[in-house]
Amino acid sequence: MTRALTIALDGMGGDHGPATVIGGADIALIRHPSIRFVIFGNEAVVGPVLAKYPRVASASDFVHTDVAVAMDDKPSQALRRGRKVSSMWRAIDAVKEGRAQAAVSAGNTGALMAMAKVILKTMPNVERPALAAIWPTARGESVALDLGATVGADEHQLVQFAAMGEAFARVLFNLKQPTIGLLNIGEEEVKGTENVKGAAQILRSSHLASQFHGFVEGDDIAKGTVDVVVTDGYTGNIALKTAEGTARLVVDYLRQAMASSLLSRIGYVFARSAFKVLSSKLDPRASNGALFLGLNGLVVKSHGGTDDVGFASAIDVAVEVASADLVAKIEADLDKLKQLGGAGDNEKTKTPESEAVLS
Amino acid sequence: MTRALTIALDGMGGDHGPATVIGGADIALIRHPSIRFVIFGNEAVVGPVLAKYPRVASASDFVHTDVAVAMDDKPSQALRRGRKVSSMWRAIDAVKEGRAQAAVSAGNTGALMAMAKVILKTMPNVERPALAAIWPTARGESVALDLGATVGADEHQLVQFAAMGEAFARVLFNLKQPTIGLLNIGEEEVKGTENVKGAAQILRSSHLASQFHGFVEGDDIAKGTVDVVVTDGYTGNIALKTAEGTARLVVDYLRQAMASSLLSRIGYVFARSAFKVLSSKLDPRASNGALFLGLNGLVVKSHGGTDDVGFASAIDVAVEVASADLVAKIEADLDKLKQLGGAGDNEKTKTPESEAVLS
Repeated sequence: MTRALTIALDGMGGDHGPATVIGGADIALIRHPSIRFVIFGNEAVVGPVLAKYPRVASASDFVHTDVAVAMDDKPSQALRRGRKVSSMWRAIDAVKEGRAQAAVSAGNTGALMAMAKVILKTMPNVERPALAAIWPTARGESVALDLGATVGADEHQLVQFAAMGEAFARVLFNLKQPTIGLLNIGEEEVKGTENVKGAAQILRSSHLASQFHGFVEGDDIAKGTVDVVVTDGYTGNIALKTAEGTARLVVDYLRQAMASSLLSRIGYVFARSAFKVLSSKLDPRASNGALFLGLNGLVVKSHGGTDDVGFASAIDVAVEVASADLVAKIEADLDKLKQLGGAGDNEKTKTPESEAVLS
Repeated sequence: MTRALTIALDGMGGDHGPATVIGGADIALIRHPSIRFVIFGNEAVVGPVLAKYPRVASASDFVHTDVAVAMDDKPSQALRRGRKVSSMWRAIDAVKEGRAQAAVSAGNTGALMAMAKVILKTMPNVERPALAAIWPTARGESVALDLGATVGADEHQLVQFAAMGEAFARVLFNLKQPTIGLLNIGEEEVKGTENVKGAAQILRSSHLASQFHGFVEGDDIAKGTVDVVVTDGYTGNIALKTAEGTARLVVDYLRQAMASSLLSRIGYVFARSAFKVLSSKLDPRASNGALFLGLNGLVVKSHGGTDDVGFASAIDVAVEVASADLVAKIEADLDKLKQLGGAGDNEKTKTPESEAVLS
């Protein structure tokens, strides 16, 4: 299925460093035996881990780097310290050089975003990149963006997010015409911010009109009402973290309830397999891997705290989008928007100070 | 505990009309035996229901009204059709006249908000009212606002929300110094919108400084990191509905998992009491009742689709805030803010076109 691909890995990123990265690569190789890796990191740290995973070692080129971006480095610090010499920089740079078709890092989001923008540059018809991720729903999965690449978005930027997210969902879920919804506080046309209302108007007269479902509300995300949920990075990040917090709370309630009596503890033993099904459905590792959309190259951000299973999911995302040549698909879509005048004039409103927030 | 109070009820509001309202009043009377009601509604509809609840009938005055605001009336329609003659208008008006200390309606939120603003008027030091509600957390309960009374809020409005929410939490949870957090996309000071950053700065130099925790993220709401979560109505409404949708999704997953095998179904039987505990913890009826803050009078909005148990919770909120004279407490707080220059100049920026969104 997968054409011959090389994925660049930042071997030093994440809370648990190379163990997660190399372990994740090992799991990913089971699912995608033909991919190759180029791994950047400190040889003294990564080398011993790589020695434990001969399958990864034989499918990889390893490149020593002196500097590792710290999880709490500010983007400006990371750029100063890590430019050209850090494992993160080099992994992204491998995409630019064509040595890899996508990069994956579990490192600090702000630094990753800043470096990715400097190295890969924003696509010609895109004002701001967006962070897109898979959101589990009652119908399966949807894509949501922007989850926090930048703060706020005007109507043209929201439309660009819609086009980029649509291409992402097409590739990821193998859908011909994914449906698109704009996150809002009501379904009626009169409600919402000016930006959201303006974006709806543009989408209705664009080539995406037949796929545009209109406004969706917060509860529509989990329902899976649309395949692509579009919002600005401030709202999207808050919605994402609110959902994560709520899921955790419900599971805590469940745990407390199951431990509350002897009978319920017995019931738990009988239903253990059901609870396993539940926890695999709620496993954040399965939907790990957010993609920066709108850059001239593919960079996937893994959760910093994930383990090898989660990191493998992030590699999956990279493989999917790289093998489908997502950048070219997005470019084609944005060209269509531009011809319709819906993409805005990105030259005027490029925002170099945009700032990433997921961690 | 409760001083002699009268609560005005809109007998015609909500998806299920008087059955819910009168049934809810009956439950509320068990908890607050000394309260009285004044109920507005169409005699032909409400009369027969009231006849079934002698306890409510004897604790109430009933006032016939000809018009009922429909659940899908636009605020402007509701004002045109329902001014002075609808059950909703009259219930709010009873608060203004001093005949009741709070009004409760399960009717259409936009109409309720519009009528409440026309009748009660916004408080002197408040630019925009906010909709505040109880949010279940891992620590118990918090208050969140604005959940959708208006779209957007500038820094001064956010500060006013903080002051109003703080007074609400003090009364509701019987706390001396509830903690306050501003919802944002990171805890660092440099992140977020200009409005949120500005509001943080004002709060840090206000009389609320010692209670101000700083920024909180989406997952902090369910954690209960702070007692009062402050945000604008657009973000707040989306966060609220995202949380509702997520909780529903997790429960659906759980239901599917428990039905997936014979063993899990047996386990369910043993653990039935635990699942009852869980569903009572997740019962949205327990936290039903959102309060419009910032008006010269107390109006509680019940979910339109709730039942008598849920409506009773909304009456509970009304009783709590009315017996504590919340309006006076908020006034005192806003006066302090004004003296510090933190409350902004509300005369310049009053927004009469603000628009309610919860339904």
